[in-house]
Amino acid sequence: MFITFEGVEGAGKSTQIALAADWLANLGRSVLTTRQPGGCALGLELRRILLDARNTHLDPAAELFMYLADRAQHVSEVIRPALARGADVLCDRYHDSTVAYQGFGRGLDVERLLMFGEVATGGLSPDLTVVLDLPVEAGLARARGRNMAHGASQAEGRFEALETAFHQRVRDGFKALAAREPGRFAVIDASGDPGAVFKAVRRAVEARF
Amino acid sequence: MFITFEGVEGAGKSTQIALAADWLANLGRSVLTTRQPGGCALGLELRRILLDARNTHLDPAAELFMYLADRAQHVSEVIRPALARGADVLCDRYHDSTVAYQGFGRGLDVERLLMFGEVATGGLSPDLTVVLDLPVEAGLARARGRNMAHGASQAEGRFEALETAFHQRVRDGFKALAAREPGRFAVIDASGDPGAVFKAVRRAVEARF
Repeated sequence: MFITFEGVEGAGKSTQIALAADWLANLGRSVLTTRQPGGCALGLELRRILLDARNTHLDPAAELFMYLADRAQHVSEVIRPALARGADVLCDRYHDSTVAYQGFGRGLDVERLLMFGEVATGGLSPDLTVVLDLPVEAGLARARGRNMAHGASQAEGRFEALETAFHQRVRDGFKALAAREPGRFAVIDASGDPGAVFKAVRRAVEARF
Repeated sequence: MFITFEGVEGAGKSTQIALAADWLANLGRSVLTTRQPGGCALGLELRRILLDARNTHLDPAAELFMYLADRAQHVSEVIRPALARGADVLCDRYHDSTVAYQGFGRGLDVERLLMFGEVATGGLSPDLTVVLDLPVEAGLARARGRNMAHGASQAEGRFEALETAFHQRVRDGFKALAAREPGRFAVIDASGDPGAVFKAVRRAVEARF
């Protein structure tokens, strides 16, 4: 099973992925957890450039194509081989993030982005996409708290520095994508405690077994 | 004026660009010579990855998107500002190379690649594209001789190691692109000595003054 986790900053993706990986492994399944960008050697190099706060002059189209390059390499080098050997793949962000952030968030053409995703993934669509949904302010507050804990020098990532209205468009974008493909998506209220959120995640996965 | 130089390996692009830059500068024009990939800081990082012979496992779509990322950043950071201040820009390869190598050479969809180019360049089309045309074997022989002179450790770039049939498709691809836009392209026989070839290049540029 190929499961992707999406949501605004601070929605709790890492925590839910860790809980889901533990649960699936305890069921005796082979599990690979990975991420985009940065899930392969090429992706790590691209991620370093993309998330570097000094690159605020990055052209929006250049940024888009770097995410797509990471995705293409990650799918062919990591995700497809893992699925082929029978593993469950849990991926932190996938092409829906590109459509939500670059399309709904920044205003690039959504239909064109969906076509770019087809090329980058070779048509590999997740069996389940979990959208961890919560109010933008709550997510940003969590993300800021986390960054503070990691020290002032990396106090804020590029996206977290952007305005609340942008993140609201992203949140609405994820919901719009879910409405287009209700069979693939599960939109889950992520404002509760991690254990309660995970119960809903687990139900969504079990429904696809 | 925005002039791009295209052609198979060893066609003499660097030499002709240097001759054209000297000539235009002697006419009192401001000239910027640049290249893709690698014409900006981001592009240099991407070029290092792309041309590294160890990356032979690079996914074709990942490679494509890295070229497009370089192009988008290079256009917005280097080419558009130079044109805006009135300089002539001479660029070693542009989107036509992507269409010729990835499309005609490797079999990716040409119409889709042309659309990707629109996004990457923001619609910036050259005033003149010089295709330096010569038989594939002659170009490869020149390119190999040049690489030998640079030492065995960098004896062959990735593309030069590919088979002759691939380079033949690339050559034919440049001609097909030229046939679609005869007003933009000048296909020039590059099999003669550099001075003779440059006479033809100069005539093509003068025709656009």
